Amino acid sequence: MNGENMKYVDLNCDLGESFGNYKIGMDEEVIPLITSANVACGYHASDPVVMQKTVQMAAANDIGIGAHPGFPDLMGFGRRNMNISTKEAYAYVTYQLGALDAFCRKSGVRMQHVKPHGALYNMAGKDYDLARAICEAVYDFDKELILLGLTGSELIRASEAVGLKHANEFFADRAYEEDGSLVARTKAGSMITDENEALERVVKVVKEGTVTSITGKEIPLNINSICVHGDGEKALAFVKLIGDRLRQEGVTVAALHTFI
Amino acid sequence: MNGENMKYVDLNCDLGESFGNYKIGMDEEVIPLITSANVACGYHASDPVVMQKTVQMAAANDIGIGAHPGFPDLMGFGRRNMNISTKEAYAYVTYQLGALDAFCRKSGVRMQHVKPHGALYNMAGKDYDLARAICEAVYDFDKELILLGLTGSELIRASEAVGLKHANEFFADRAYEEDGSLVARTKAGSMITDENEALERVVKVVKEGTVTSITGKEIPLNINSICVHGDGEKALAFVKLIGDRLRQEGVTVAALHTFI
Amino acid sequence: MNGENMKYVDLNCDLGESFGNYKIGMDEEVIPLITSANVACGYHASDPVVMQKTVQMAAANDIGIGAHPGFPDLMGFGRRNMNISTKEAYAYVTYQLGALDAFCRKSGVRMQHVKPHGALYNMAGKDYDLARAICEAVYDFDKELILLGLTGSELIRASEAVGLKHANEFFADRAYEEDGSLVARTKAGSMITDENEALERVVKVVKEGTVTSITGKEIPLNINSICVHGDGEKALAFVKLIGDRLRQEGVTVAALHTFI
Amino acid sequence: MNGENMKYVDLNCDLGESFGNYKIGMDEEVIPLITSANVACGYHASDPVVMQKTVQMAAANDIGIGAHPGFPDLMGFGRRNMNISTKEAYAYVTYQLGALDAFCRKSGVRMQHVKPHGALYNMAGKDYDLARAICEAVYDFDKELILLGLTGSELIRASEAVGLKHANEFFADRAYEEDGSLVARTKAGSMITDENEALERVVKVVKEGTVTSITGKEIPLNINSICVHGDGEKALAFVKLIGDRLRQEGVTVAALHTFI
Repeated sequence: MNGENMKYVDLNCDLGESFGNYKIGMDEEVIPLITSANVACGYHASDPVVMQKTVQMAAANDIGIGAHPGFPDLMGFGRRNMNISTKEAYAYVTYQLGALDAFCRKSGVRMQHVKPHGALYNMAGKDYDLARAICEAVYDFDKELILLGLTGSELIRASEAVGLKHANEFFADRAYEEDGSLVARTKAGSMITDENEALERVVKVVKEGTVTSITGKEIPLNINSICVHGDGEKALAFVKLIGDRLRQEGVTVAALHTFI
Repeated sequence: MNGENMKYVDLNCDLGESFGNYKIGMDEEVIPLITSANVACGYHASDPVVMQKTVQMAAANDIGIGAHPGFPDLMGFGRRNMNISTKEAYAYVTYQLGALDAFCRKSGVRMQHVKPHGALYNMAGKDYDLARAICEAVYDFDKELILLGLTGSELIRASEAVGLKHANEFFADRAYEEDGSLVARTKAGSMITDENEALERVVKVVKEGTVTSITGKEIPLNINSICVHGDGEKALAFVKLIGDRLRQEGVTVAALHTFI
Repeated sequence: MNGENMKYVDLNCDLGESFGNYKIGMDEEVIPLITSANVACGYHASDPVVMQKTVQMAAANDIGIGAHPGFPDLMGFGRRNMNISTKEAYAYVTYQLGALDAFCRKSGVRMQHVKPHGALYNMAGKDYDLARAICEAVYDFDKELILLGLTGSELIRASEAVGLKHANEFFADRAYEEDGSLVARTKAGSMITDENEALERVVKVVKEGTVTSITGKEIPLNINSICVHGDGEKALAFVKLIGDRLRQEGVTVAALHTFI
Repeated sequence: MNGENMKYVDLNCDLGESFGNYKIGMDEEVIPLITSANVACGYHASDPVVMQKTVQMAAANDIGIGAHPGFPDLMGFGRRNMNISTKEAYAYVTYQLGALDAFCRKSGVRMQHVKPHGALYNMAGKDYDLARAICEAVYDFDKELILLGLTGSELIRASEAVGLKHANEFFADRAYEEDGSLVARTKAGSMITDENEALERVVKVVKEGTVTSITGKEIPLNINSICVHGDGEKALAFVKLIGDRLRQEGVTVAALHTFI
């Protein structure tokens, strides 16, 4: 097997979403199963004590660490669209990158990537100006960072324009339109609820670079990272299953920075 | 005149305390009159947009930029004692240093110093464990940073123990006890309300290294920076007066990093 | 002159927008010039200490007191659209009404009205479901309250459907479309910048019930309250001018509850 | 059996402490086992959606509903001492009472009591001025409310001075000093870790009005309510055990308002 045929993929998961007395997620359990962590930065979730602990755990397990900046909306967990200006987006992302980076420095690791969170991810995926402000904030902070965004989204387009490295994210539990965009959650069939089907879609998109659209058509999709969840025993089992299966298929499951 | 006899002093002022639609301070007017800025970091005051603008202005005027971390108490402006743990203090300071540093990086400047804000400054001035947690957070973030604290306080003692450079701060409008500590605000005579008296005290402490205590005794006080205010026309005029007078007296008024 | 021909109008102003150490507005100066106050409730602005003081001042001056609920976005002063659910809107408005009402009870006054703030006002003006959730929250809290909203908006439509009393608000500094809606701020000519013109428009809309649209057409507009500003000396002078002129014209300038 | 010999006690539990996407506690499970709920009001925990749901559940189960006001410290869950002024304490408590009361009104129930939360409870237990400010806020809001505080604390003393009804709280899992105060958590033996011992202490204090102090002395303790926890299966089982045992012993387990 030569290098040309080698297939690489990253498994990313949102981590460090606890806050004060509030606990969310099974960070300790999922960290050994993934290759990159998106760490909340105190705006939509997390606090400095949680950030410090999360970065330490991720660093100890040698997985890629990324910032997961979100809207300043703790009450809504960053999941509600907010009409912020591009100037605000630039500054909010810069602030959150710096805050997380401080903990990376203390743990002696280098930040690997940035993945906008929740509504910021979704809005920037469709709004080029917002996406560009985010990408410029990332680039101005550290031009070696990798922007992790939805395949074909404005975030990816903006990262190319700005000169940022980027990685394309795939959602195992979501259906895709023919143009490679996600089927809106409000449409029937938008979620892939069968675990086996989800697993087979992951294998195919990684190995063959294609996915079956909701209309039944095979479409090309170039992806680098699979978004996984660590918020329950069932989710953890599925992450393990994905990793095991991909490795059986000869895929190298590794942090983004090793192959992007 | 040889170097031994050269006198140096820094003029520091709290800046960047506006928040969203709320404006505090006359930052643009005071920046040309001072040599170091303590920039709020979003916990007791400020937001990312304000931080970005403040750092840009300070950088453009080539003054020293410092972080001014405070308690997470926007409603109380960080002026109310909060009983946080040393672990929380360490993490909160780290978070705020990182956030401010991100804006320094964008402006192409290096952060010069750290001065805890308000109640955090006062509590850490008397509580060695808290002071030590703060100093360790600063040291672990960047061991070249200067800790700016009250002369003779636990903050200075902790910075020495940790191996941080430090600078001693003097308050022109406050009376001092014989042991060099500040007279409590609740005591009569704690404030120096006469502007001329305040000015002469500044000149003397800088040139001669002594201050007249509230008991009338001359006490030695080794100081490196004068705390000034920029929140009104009268305050601005006094800052200008201090700077002009010190220069007339042959004192070099310069940012901390040039002589610490 | 008989009662049929009597003209009444209310002058309303946003008050109590200070927060902690941050001061906004000239509340003490504007209160004697207006007849109704929209008091911020701690979400987009204000804190309990400010609310208490504001309600006390308004009560002492015997003006109508209303709640001014907004989005939970202190950093954006409630001026940024947020995509909250109707369930959240209902609960957020209820919370803010209750909080303000507590201060009204202490001051021995009855809350008069509710005017949603900023982006919540604008969004609810165009989104019936959101407007309805707000009106239901108001009605369920106290069915005697008056909903103050933009003439012809969904807020007014929803208040009618829910069975709430309502008052139509007029903006002296804004141009109107032929259908009675506000000209979008992004369009040329959206703002009435000439003070005399603004004053004459107020007099005409109150006395004759018509306004000249941006297209030059006279359109009917049934209004009950004029929105005024108290954030500067110039604004204060204009408020005084409006009140004086309306009284000269024989209009009764009085709080909403006296004539709605 | 005559009324003189009838024994009454209330079982109170902190509820409604979830926030946005964050869940704490097993409110649905514990509500049927208790007689009074202390409902968080959005400062140290909770949000309006959670408050609405919590009040609805409590009302549907016909248990007493109380406000649980705390410090504005979501990150610290209101458990960290904050040096607020008595004026701030008065206003913060008023705000939170009003907010919770709005949801009580919607559910058609009357608020029964107020129990300060966490560090506010502890600080006010020892600081008469703070306790008095809180009691005055409660009294001025609704003079029929019951103040629930630690037996013998400054909160109880202040409620008497202000003219508020009050109820004495007992902690089954805490040791008591000879003077009836709680043994500081930092002292050995401060916690009653044996469940049977805790249960027997509850029975004795309710039936006989005495508790064995940490020094082994029987001391009188007049109590009206037992503080219980609902944050786990074990805690729930213990709450059930306490209620069952007290009823077996002939004690009437009922909401505070039925016997205070």
